[in-house]
Amino acid sequence: MVKQIILKSRPVGFPTAGNFEIREIEIPELTTGQVRLIPHTISVDPYLRGRMNDGPSYVAPFQVGEPMAGGAIAMIKESRAEGYETGRYVMGFLPWQEEIVIEAKGLNVLDDSIAPLSFYLGVLGMPGLTAWFGLEEIGNLKNGETIVISGAAGAVGIVAGQLAKLRGCRVVGIAGDDAKVKYLLDELNFDAAINYKTSPDLYKAISEACHNGVDVYFDNVGGEISDTVISQINKFARIIICGQISLYNLTSIPVGPRVQGTLLKKSALMQGFIVSNYAERFPLVGSGKLKYTNTTYHGFEKLPEALMALFEGKNLGKLIVEL
Amino acid sequence: MVKQIILKSRPVGFPTAGNFEIREIEIPELTTGQVRLIPHTISVDPYLRGRMNDGPSYVAPFQVGEPMAGGAIAMIKESRAEGYETGRYVMGFLPWQEEIVIEAKGLNVLDDSIAPLSFYLGVLGMPGLTAWFGLEEIGNLKNGETIVISGAAGAVGIVAGQLAKLRGCRVVGIAGDDAKVKYLLDELNFDAAINYKTSPDLYKAISEACHNGVDVYFDNVGGEISDTVISQINKFARIIICGQISLYNLTSIPVGPRVQGTLLKKSALMQGFIVSNYAERFPLVGSGKLKYTNTTYHGFEKLPEALMALFEGKNLGKLIVEL
Repeated sequence: MVKQIILKSRPVGFPTAGNFEIREIEIPELTTGQVRLIPHTISVDPYLRGRMNDGPSYVAPFQVGEPMAGGAIAMIKESRAEGYETGRYVMGFLPWQEEIVIEAKGLNVLDDSIAPLSFYLGVLGMPGLTAWFGLEEIGNLKNGETIVISGAAGAVGIVAGQLAKLRGCRVVGIAGDDAKVKYLLDELNFDAAINYKTSPDLYKAISEACHNGVDVYFDNVGGEISDTVISQINKFARIIICGQISLYNLTSIPVGPRVQGTLLKKSALMQGFIVSNYAERFPLVGSGKLKYTNTTYHGFEKLPEALMALFEGKNLGKLIVEL
Repeated sequence: MVKQIILKSRPVGFPTAGNFEIREIEIPELTTGQVRLIPHTISVDPYLRGRMNDGPSYVAPFQVGEPMAGGAIAMIKESRAEGYETGRYVMGFLPWQEEIVIEAKGLNVLDDSIAPLSFYLGVLGMPGLTAWFGLEEIGNLKNGETIVISGAAGAVGIVAGQLAKLRGCRVVGIAGDDAKVKYLLDELNFDAAINYKTSPDLYKAISEACHNGVDVYFDNVGGEISDTVISQINKFARIIICGQISLYNLTSIPVGPRVQGTLLKKSALMQGFIVSNYAERFPLVGSGKLKYTNTTYHGFEKLPEALMALFEGKNLGKLIVEL
């Protein structure tokens, strides 16, 4: 018998412990083409919240009574699939279980000589690719431009900021505590970083950090922070809609100032995307120039708590759970 | 002495007759390089409302006590400029005056053998170019896609719809009275047209007209009509922000459902523009395939009334004043 974390009920607003349940299940024997996996590190991401709702989003919803699932790295404990040797690590989209029997096809075997395994869930994985494609496909960064990044200390933000620095931009990060601000400034060399929770006048803080206005806005959070940034964009600005984490737990349709008038006055572009749009073009990102960090929870049963922590902004960098 | 219409005071909300004043001024003699013009047709456009406010928009504000101005066609009554013969017609950005002395440089001499003069203010002028560049630069239309156009019976909308038909799209227009709807269907061969004022359920009317969802939205109006269209966009939709006439007369910041979540879920693009962004690339549009119509007011002193009528949606096609 192994433990599995299921979606017990759909959250109304922020997810709570009561929305999850641990149950024990039997694991079957392997058939040809399958592997038996022991999860090593499980990725905890904002998009999971959308999948806990019913109804269509950009990914299909989880079903009540069925296991939660997400990106994870796991060790191959037993294999009946060619090319998947016992003892190797793989990455894939896996249910939240202590042990998994699954078709090997589609799992990526990892090379831990390139980087720590957990980085495959971050800078070398989905969040890193998200930052890359958002900037490359929508941001159209030019040397000397100013980019503002919200959720700057999150998994995507810390990569986006560094990539923008490599492009010669002035990089301004917005985050929710002083430790994150310090990390952005001291470790990642952002040009400016703002704690929106303690800033007495966020509009002024942004305008002081962006002497020449905002050319690109990489938006991970949405809501009022974004309103304040968008009100300061330059002509021909590009707004990359990567995430809207401030809105994911709302129980009614979010309302705010209409952006269309600003986009019209500024001839500005706003575009949403999801990294899987570019799946055909995923390169292997592997430059030693990028720094990366994780916030790690330990133990399988911490998965729900880790997900709740994400929506409280407790993570610096990628949030992962190690088993 | 000639009459001039000045901005007497800045409107709060909809412009009223009291915001304008007619005064009489002396007209100077010509100096070298100048022409004396008698306006023939004056263009009345939504963007004029923005210029009646103080503060920056995409064009500089009119000054209180100074004349209103806009696109106009005028006859050359007297000339001291080479290439500008007396009796020819020119188009330019001209003050609202019965007679004008101005530098000839920058005025375009018109060829009335191509089309009626007034068409240079419409399908052959700014509104036609606006439709063209919005569709070409942002719309990225593909054969068989569905496009919804709001303000469809306006100067830009009637061109945009016809261009989209030529691209092989299903074209759905939204307008504010039955005569406009009839014009769109019978004269311009739109695939569907909706009177938003009498439709009992606009959401349903749009979804019925767009069997396969909305791939492109050409937005001239903003506000709740746009909310209803945007809630029905397809993945990878393009939203062209050309105008937001429903918002121009508001006295507070317009508020509505946030669009970012929809753009994110649908990997959709929303972009504002102004036709002058593409000034370097203005071609001479001159295809006999496009139909065009004007709503014409007669007499110089009707200019304020014509502008007010624009915001009440009284025009079919381009709104002009002939003197």
